[in-house]
Amino acid sequence: MIKIVLLGAGNVATHLYKVFKEASNIEVVQWYNRNLKAIEMYKNEVDITDDVNALIEADVYIIAISDDAIEALSTSLPFENRLVVHTSGSARLYDIDQKHYRGVFYPLQTFSKDVDLDFTTVPICIETLRKKDFKLLETIGESLGCKTFKVNPKQRPALHLAAVFVNNFTNQIYRIAHEITEKQGAEFDILKPLIAETARKVQEVSPYLAQTGPAKRNDKKTIKRHLKLLDNPHHEDVYNLMTESIKKTHGR
Amino acid sequence: MIKIVLLGAGNVATHLYKVFKEASNIEVVQWYNRNLKAIEMYKNEVDITDDVNALIEADVYIIAISDDAIEALSTSLPFENRLVVHTSGSARLYDIDQKHYRGVFYPLQTFSKDVDLDFTTVPICIETLRKKDFKLLETIGESLGCKTFKVNPKQRPALHLAAVFVNNFTNQIYRIAHEITEKQGAEFDILKPLIAETARKVQEVSPYLAQTGPAKRNDKKTIKRHLKLLDNPHHEDVYNLMTESIKKTHGR
Repeated sequence: MIKIVLLGAGNVATHLYKVFKEASNIEVVQWYNRNLKAIEMYKNEVDITDDVNALIEADVYIIAISDDAIEALSTSLPFENRLVVHTSGSARLYDIDQKHYRGVFYPLQTFSKDVDLDFTTVPICIETLRKKDFKLLETIGESLGCKTFKVNPKQRPALHLAAVFVNNFTNQIYRIAHEITEKQGAEFDILKPLIAETARKVQEVSPYLAQTGPAKRNDKKTIKRHLKLLDNPHHEDVYNLMTESIKKTHGR
Repeated sequence: MIKIVLLGAGNVATHLYKVFKEASNIEVVQWYNRNLKAIEMYKNEVDITDDVNALIEADVYIIAISDDAIEALSTSLPFENRLVVHTSGSARLYDIDQKHYRGVFYPLQTFSKDVDLDFTTVPICIETLRKKDFKLLETIGESLGCKTFKVNPKQRPALHLAAVFVNNFTNQIYRIAHEITEKQGAEFDILKPLIAETARKVQEVSPYLAQTGPAKRNDKKTIKRHLKLLDNPHHEDVYNLMTESIKKTHGR
């Protein structure tokens, strides 16, 4: 049984708690949060605390809090030479106090409190200093049914940055499409199968090969017609930059 | 039985031919292409021709060719007062010669020759001048298991434009993410579940509500760190513009 102490009560911590609870070889022996209210509803199923001095022994302490708070919390932990990891895509491994064995257990996925998620689809990016710690975190990831990936200190921030592109920026592209259809009273729903298919396609072929459309063809007539349709200067900026981007990639 | 003559041999025409063939109440009575070679492989299952003067009678003539060629082909058809439609998202209904009853049967989806597609997920946007013609096209769409939508001359181009955003621009965002991960030797595969989840989320909640991340939170520290990581000025431009776009939408 792998004993885990969880620290934090945000989206990632809450999702982790729920999947840890389901895993047969993992036990969350304690859940810490500086504000007890946020985890009080779980007090009947797990030991909860808001006092770092009351933390009990475990195989790994998983800190799932905001990047800026990791360093201070890890320093405040009243023990040393135990495995302490954070779950951030962008905080450094070295943000964890050096009195601990340090690691990162970064689930690369978007977590919303209200949206259920099949956790087995979540890739876990693991960074450690000791091989032994990597093995333990790998076992935890696999116990959740996840694929695990060994990453280095340059790859994880690159993945986090790329995640902002495919998640936040893509979602904003959807938002602009929503604004464009709404303006003409057309249903955004009509675009949903295309959104799904566009994401599905790159599960199999590279984005480079998957590309189609007027920018790739350098179809000036359609591009001109589109720009004429756009009456929002900001939408126009996005159209122009993304069209240029596609042309650059496809050598137009 | 609804009799259809199909004109053209591109991706859309080929996909349509295949699904029409499967539909129980639809018969493709003839397939025209100006270059017979492209459809010769189907000559044992359907009447093929490269001669507009050899076109036979049908309930509807579906022109699935490039936008620029629609007008000329429709004019060259040696009959009048029959229903002739095109499948384009951006060509005007009036591009079809006025000697015909005119309409548009626009499947809003991305079609690749090599990628199989569940056609029942494809929304069909229909535009006609006569109610009767709308009914017929609606029946055809429903026979394929598709959802059909009545659109007007302003909505269809808006949908086509929005489709360029959610398909081509999103795909280019994926491409940039691929470039960013590749540069550090990180696997693009790690991003695929996030790509899938981002698309899945907006099937249920609006892109506005689905948004998360540093730009929405106006997390200046993370944004600054990301900009420092980006060493490609073009990627930087996209990062800056999309970050501004999210801030605009979420009132930052």
